Amino acid sequence: MDEPPWPHVRLSETDRLEAFSDGVFSITITLLVAEIVRPEYASGMLLQKLTAQWASYIAFLASFCYAGVIWLNHRAVFARVRYCDRSLHLANLFLLLTSGLIPFPTAILSAAIQSGNEFDARVAATLYAAIAGSMCLAWLVVFHVLSVRPYLVEKQVDPDFFPKERFRAVLGIVLYAIAGLAGWLSSPKLAMLIFLALPIFYGITSEGLTEARFQLRFGNARHRASAKDHHDGSLVE
Amino acid sequence: MDEPPWPHVRLSETDRLEAFSDGVFSITITLLVAEIVRPEYASGMLLQKLTAQWASYIAFLASFCYAGVIWLNHRAVFARVRYCDRSLHLANLFLLLTSGLIPFPTAILSAAIQSGNEFDARVAATLYAAIAGSMCLAWLVVFHVLSVRPYLVEKQVDPDFFPKERFRAVLGIVLYAIAGLAGWLSSPKLAMLIFLALPIFYGITSEGLTEARFQLRFGNARHRASAKDHHDGSLVE
Amino acid sequence: MDEPPWPHVRLSETDRLEAFSDGVFSITITLLVAEIVRPEYASGMLLQKLTAQWASYIAFLASFCYAGVIWLNHRAVFARVRYCDRSLHLANLFLLLTSGLIPFPTAILSAAIQSGNEFDARVAATLYAAIAGSMCLAWLVVFHVLSVRPYLVEKQVDPDFFPKERFRAVLGIVLYAIAGLAGWLSSPKLAMLIFLALPIFYGITSEGLTEARFQLRFGNARHRASAKDHHDGSLVE
Amino acid sequence: MDEPPWPHVRLSETDRLEAFSDGVFSITITLLVAEIVRPEYASGMLLQKLTAQWASYIAFLASFCYAGVIWLNHRAVFARVRYCDRSLHLANLFLLLTSGLIPFPTAILSAAIQSGNEFDARVAATLYAAIAGSMCLAWLVVFHVLSVRPYLVEKQVDPDFFPKERFRAVLGIVLYAIAGLAGWLSSPKLAMLIFLALPIFYGITSEGLTEARFQLRFGNARHRASAKDHHDGSLVE
Repeated sequence: MDEPPWPHVRLSETDRLEAFSDGVFSITITLLVAEIVRPEYASGMLLQKLTAQWASYIAFLASFCYAGVIWLNHRAVFARVRYCDRSLHLANLFLLLTSGLIPFPTAILSAAIQSGNEFDARVAATLYAAIAGSMCLAWLVVFHVLSVRPYLVEKQVDPDFFPKERFRAVLGIVLYAIAGLAGWLSSPKLAMLIFLALPIFYGITSEGLTEARFQLRFGNARHRASAKDHHDGSLVE
Repeated sequence: MDEPPWPHVRLSETDRLEAFSDGVFSITITLLVAEIVRPEYASGMLLQKLTAQWASYIAFLASFCYAGVIWLNHRAVFARVRYCDRSLHLANLFLLLTSGLIPFPTAILSAAIQSGNEFDARVAATLYAAIAGSMCLAWLVVFHVLSVRPYLVEKQVDPDFFPKERFRAVLGIVLYAIAGLAGWLSSPKLAMLIFLALPIFYGITSEGLTEARFQLRFGNARHRASAKDHHDGSLVE
Repeated sequence: MDEPPWPHVRLSETDRLEAFSDGVFSITITLLVAEIVRPEYASGMLLQKLTAQWASYIAFLASFCYAGVIWLNHRAVFARVRYCDRSLHLANLFLLLTSGLIPFPTAILSAAIQSGNEFDARVAATLYAAIAGSMCLAWLVVFHVLSVRPYLVEKQVDPDFFPKERFRAVLGIVLYAIAGLAGWLSSPKLAMLIFLALPIFYGITSEGLTEARFQLRFGNARHRASAKDHHDGSLVE
Repeated sequence: MDEPPWPHVRLSETDRLEAFSDGVFSITITLLVAEIVRPEYASGMLLQKLTAQWASYIAFLASFCYAGVIWLNHRAVFARVRYCDRSLHLANLFLLLTSGLIPFPTAILSAAIQSGNEFDARVAATLYAAIAGSMCLAWLVVFHVLSVRPYLVEKQVDPDFFPKERFRAVLGIVLYAIAGLAGWLSSPKLAMLIFLALPIFYGITSEGLTEARFQLRFGNARHRASAKDHHDGSLVE
């Protein structure tokens, strides 16, 4: 061998996809902070001005939590991926496109709800549902690519993992479609309920549906740590 | 040996070049979202205001897709590079300079086309052609450096790969020159057609001209996976 | 074994958490520079205009130093972490949320102090104390998770390290609570003193309370380098 | 050993310092593009409006090139560093602070020169010299820390490398001091000449004074590649 065994190593093929996606997510989450407008200074009015913009604090927190949930899901998926082909790259770009857009309808929805105009609230709820639903569609494409091309996935991952994950994405598409219809046709109250419930559901199941069940019984890390004791020579975490 | 064999490893020399470039690309792509202006709120007018800015949605989508295609090409090139010298660093900085500028003429072109003023449209088409053509020139420099300095390239890469890639860059320079001339001298319609066609061409051939052919026959990942079975001990992916 | 021993390696599980956090910190720190307003140009008035905005230079420096201290602490903590579970991810997101907000109350406090309005200064001091105290609460959660789940920590780390670190976070919560009360009830002078002292304390103890003591005697790197001589085969730095 | 030999590896201790710095540099360089103002649209006036802002194109190019040169230098220094202690972290934060500020005086200088007001030009030249000189001071601190703490440096690096590098930083401090004085006391023409010459000098010597000499004779990569043939088992690149 004219080559030293491993003077350089290469990370898993997903390395740059993860770095690029982390860049997009971290900028999205940081720009949210930049959007909290600093009130114009007027002597003695600071408390009043700060409390007047309470709605933008709530929109900020909601966007931050949703972006955090998306990042947790992204990390959990790509920790299970070993190779990337073009389909997976394109699906990931579609995901970055739709998830990067989320703060846009969030801000519009928060402004419309405050205004009290019923028609605007319905337009805003429909827009939010359309963009959040597109993001679920992007997740469905990612999960589907990983289901039909199992050679992209780390060997230790259960072959049923990604086929089952598709259910989470389909659920999101269906529920956001219902929320969009409800928002458009009748009152946007039901839509708002779905908008709040889905990020919480995706947060709880960020490690996948099966792992979520395990967690309720043992806690994820404990389970993983004990798994490590049994298969001590394995390469992956 | 007083040193443990590999307590630390160093990644391929392209590590920081890739991290820096990923940073630039991810910020470019995220700032595009920030450019979608949120409409001024006016009660009951939300739907009208949102649909009025359809042109900025299209410019956003076009810029996002082009930035995604550039990132895919960049990833594919530097996955094949092992060492970096100053020429390659300078060529890459030239590439970051020109590709980071793309959203600037895109927005100007979209505004000019909408205005219906023929002279403005020709100016904008020429500006777009000049900047996109400079980006192709930067790719040509990158491919040329990797052609004349084969010791920078990973051993497993076909020695003909980068010399052949230069063709893709030259094609871009020639076509953007034609588009610029067409835009300046006559109607900008032909220019627009070239502006739409080239990113699609670069997207399809992002893994290189030769790989693109393989893909049509087998699909890229499948081909790569089977190649892996034959040369199982190889270090690279 | 049908798999070559380590064609790809995976970094410690904290890899993406660190990359994502570095992204957030580096954007926060860079946006601070962008906030230094460039004075409107008026012929012959440049010196006057530049010196007039001295307060924004000080707010910039204070925010930059605090962000730097937070990053140093974050790096020191996660260099000692090997596995991540959901609790640690959520604690880290809470930390990113609160530390990303710091420039917001800093700017408001600097504007309020300059205005000379006593009531505004007290409101601003209380806001600053509330957000900085929440950040200390986030650190407490991080340290507590690493204390009660020792299997997440690198083996070489003293088992008492993270339990002891909780003291630093509790100290911050208590002192920022005192500062908030002092700012609200009486003069904000005492609050300001605490605001200046705590980042300096966290900067000095960024490697942990125990390491800080060592450093006073030997210097940290020298200590670490000599430790390396004794346990030469160890995997971690 | 109850631990598998290298299920996870840790990169050189400089890993997060590099990632954080790359983040800061890539955001700085991308925000420069965002500063090119898109002209207000006025039918038929596009060409005129675009050419009117030629000065901002030049300031953009100058800032981009300087930021690129700083990144090249940073990469070259930290490729030679193996361990980080607090002094090096603080020196690096000082460097990020000063180099992130460079676009600020560049824009002010470009505006002042165009205005033709002699006093403003002298103020702007002095400001630029002060900030660029501080950046050279930060480099001096970095080089000095690596000179007096040789155990932080990779073993393969010539022990004279960083002591000699201090000369480059001192040269910058002296020349920017002269430029500042010249700009303040007499005409800012000499200052401008120094402002143009120093980034070029730092660009040419980005791999260090000694390497720059080698490069003139062999080319850097060729030299490095042949060195690799002689010491084939070495771990570093």
